[in-house]
Amino acid sequence: MALIVQKYGGTSVANPDRIKNVAARVAGYRERGDRLVVVVSAMSGVTDSLLKLAKEILPLPPEREMDMLLATGEQTTIALTAMALHARDVPAVSLTGAQAGIVTDRVHTKAKIQNITPRQIHALLDSGQVVIVAGFQGQTQEGQITTLGRGGSDLTAIALAAALKADLCQIFTDVDGVYTADPRLVPSARKLDEVAYDELLELAGAGAKVMQLRSVEFAKKFGVVFEVRSSLNDNPGTIVKEETKSMEGIVVRGVSLDKNQAKITVVAAPDRPGVSSRIFHALADAAINVDMIVQNVSHGSARPITDLSFTIDKPDLLKARKVMDALKPEIGFREVIANEGVAKLSIVGVGMRSHSGVAAKMFETLAREDINIDMISTSEIKISVVVDLAKGEAATRAVHEAFLG
Amino acid sequence: MALIVQKYGGTSVANPDRIKNVAARVAGYRERGDRLVVVVSAMSGVTDSLLKLAKEILPLPPEREMDMLLATGEQTTIALTAMALHARDVPAVSLTGAQAGIVTDRVHTKAKIQNITPRQIHALLDSGQVVIVAGFQGQTQEGQITTLGRGGSDLTAIALAAALKADLCQIFTDVDGVYTADPRLVPSARKLDEVAYDELLELAGAGAKVMQLRSVEFAKKFGVVFEVRSSLNDNPGTIVKEETKSMEGIVVRGVSLDKNQAKITVVAAPDRPGVSSRIFHALADAAINVDMIVQNVSHGSARPITDLSFTIDKPDLLKARKVMDALKPEIGFREVIANEGVAKLSIVGVGMRSHSGVAAKMFETLAREDINIDMISTSEIKISVVVDLAKGEAATRAVHEAFLG
Repeated sequence: MALIVQKYGGTSVANPDRIKNVAARVAGYRERGDRLVVVVSAMSGVTDSLLKLAKEILPLPPEREMDMLLATGEQTTIALTAMALHARDVPAVSLTGAQAGIVTDRVHTKAKIQNITPRQIHALLDSGQVVIVAGFQGQTQEGQITTLGRGGSDLTAIALAAALKADLCQIFTDVDGVYTADPRLVPSARKLDEVAYDELLELAGAGAKVMQLRSVEFAKKFGVVFEVRSSLNDNPGTIVKEETKSMEGIVVRGVSLDKNQAKITVVAAPDRPGVSSRIFHALADAAINVDMIVQNVSHGSARPITDLSFTIDKPDLLKARKVMDALKPEIGFREVIANEGVAKLSIVGVGMRSHSGVAAKMFETLAREDINIDMISTSEIKISVVVDLAKGEAATRAVHEAFLG
Repeated sequence: MALIVQKYGGTSVANPDRIKNVAARVAGYRERGDRLVVVVSAMSGVTDSLLKLAKEILPLPPEREMDMLLATGEQTTIALTAMALHARDVPAVSLTGAQAGIVTDRVHTKAKIQNITPRQIHALLDSGQVVIVAGFQGQTQEGQITTLGRGGSDLTAIALAAALKADLCQIFTDVDGVYTADPRLVPSARKLDEVAYDELLELAGAGAKVMQLRSVEFAKKFGVVFEVRSSLNDNPGTIVKEETKSMEGIVVRGVSLDKNQAKITVVAAPDRPGVSSRIFHALADAAINVDMIVQNVSHGSARPITDLSFTIDKPDLLKARKVMDALKPEIGFREVIANEGVAKLSIVGVGMRSHSGVAAKMFETLAREDINIDMISTSEIKISVVVDLAKGEAATRAVHEAFLG
């Protein structure tokens, strides 16, 4: 008799029929004797409709009122999910984030969970109920409704699993689990049985759209083992957990390609202290997220100059150009070259720590395919390269074949 | 600087443009220096969509979950209304029923307000905010979300006005106020400047669709003076209050016609104790609402028999026939005659208490128009008659002309 926290995302509860499917699945677990806490998101499309309504009234609505508005999305789903369980004669009670005891800070629209008082959930579980909890939301200590921002429902599930000391946390989604690469890109990609928190963090940071970073970080911090699996079939998913000795045997856990990057090169910038700080402060002030940064060695000796390259999200390119143009007189670089035609290819694996020659093998593989490398950046368990966008997919397949084929 | 509670119904907040209109009106009051608490309903159509969703999952959903579901309707409106005020640079904060301190009993879907702790509302008003409160909802002492049933938003407004000791309570709706008769039926009908609680209660009970009885009863109980007025124009509405001496000068305040009635006559029922009790208990058990009841004097002496007539809501007619058919062997009446072709015409006025000859004048008016009276029922401030449905409208016009023309 395990205590299981399950989370179903927006597409899994998109309409009454899918909600009935979720109820059928939950009922199945309950028949086995498990105790269940089920976290649900807003039905897919609902949050967007609410956002659209709000924008019709005010382009930038106050965040407290956005939270009041958006919280109705999950509240609708919990009620309907509880009803669908009642339709199967399974006793079930829905709870808003506030009722579930989820207390957050006061940062509306992207609140952080501060603590969870799961007294009511425990009482309901003890009385034999399935407890349905609204994901993505909580309340401040003063009783203000807050939302947790993107990926918030995953976070609710993982935080509840931690607070309840659940035996298992299952994140149901529309994919079968975490893959060695995007199967649409790499037909030979395989589902992973397990992946370490750090690996999933690097894969997600490298563009793999499995889960938001913060949910994985939270799970890592509190040691919550969770499973990513499909709500459309009964296949086992991928277990995400702390890395183990045996995981190190595998050098590369996964390959990911991020086609949403653009590269900016600042040509012949003066190589003196404070220049790069000035540039990246200005970009941060404009809320532009910088990913990879590479600075080449300087040349010239009286007044040394250097080339500085960095990548940003493609939609920020225009904004970034404006920031750089404004800095030109102050800093005195020669020019700025922007390139939208790039992609970032990454390989990730905790095994890299104990294996050498991984980078060499990656570069060699790309060279053999006649793919030029624009930028390189490495971390302890990840190697990322920037390549020509047009060759990104071929590069991904080649690297996957070399390490995971 | 008055404290005003305003309530806007579903049609007044049906879409973003109408919500903006509400905000414009509220902003206007605020510019005068008033302090405002604004109660809003769900946008019209929203509650029906939610009900439809629920029925797709379960024909008779558990009432606790219905409340969880339906409460999202008003929560959506409060957030959007607060945004619309922000768009006008008016500081505004939305509160759910629970946050507004509205505590109810545990009867889900038709909860009664037990008490209101308006501490938070007072604090927000003191800090210069317009406070937007979700109508129709509250929470139990245990923190369960409840809804108040039909007309619940009016009730929220009136209860808040009582708890806050507001100077004024305004119920904004899509009519200009309370009329002497339905203007679609009686072109010469006039809007009333004022009406007594008891008169409005009798008019509403007689089919005038201004407000739900329970809201008026609540206002009467707590002495809340309120105004019914239009959200579409700036015309003054109708003030509803305790009756005053001056009100008695007017014999008939209004005329109403209820075409939703059906008449059942039990012919030759044995006139012995317990028979009518048996009949009306059986009808009550079947949840059939009985309105007028008339029993004629009995005839026969060894085994006296009598005719018993009563009216019910037309949609209940089939169900009522079945109840009566089932009772026939036990009670032993001769037959049951059902008549859907009837209407109930009522005149209402506190002045009737001190004026005689009112009934005579009503009957005389109908006789002059050659309209036959089927049943008569009187209360202290109301006289109702059942007439042929086809003649109902002509009868209404004639009686309105006689008393209010």
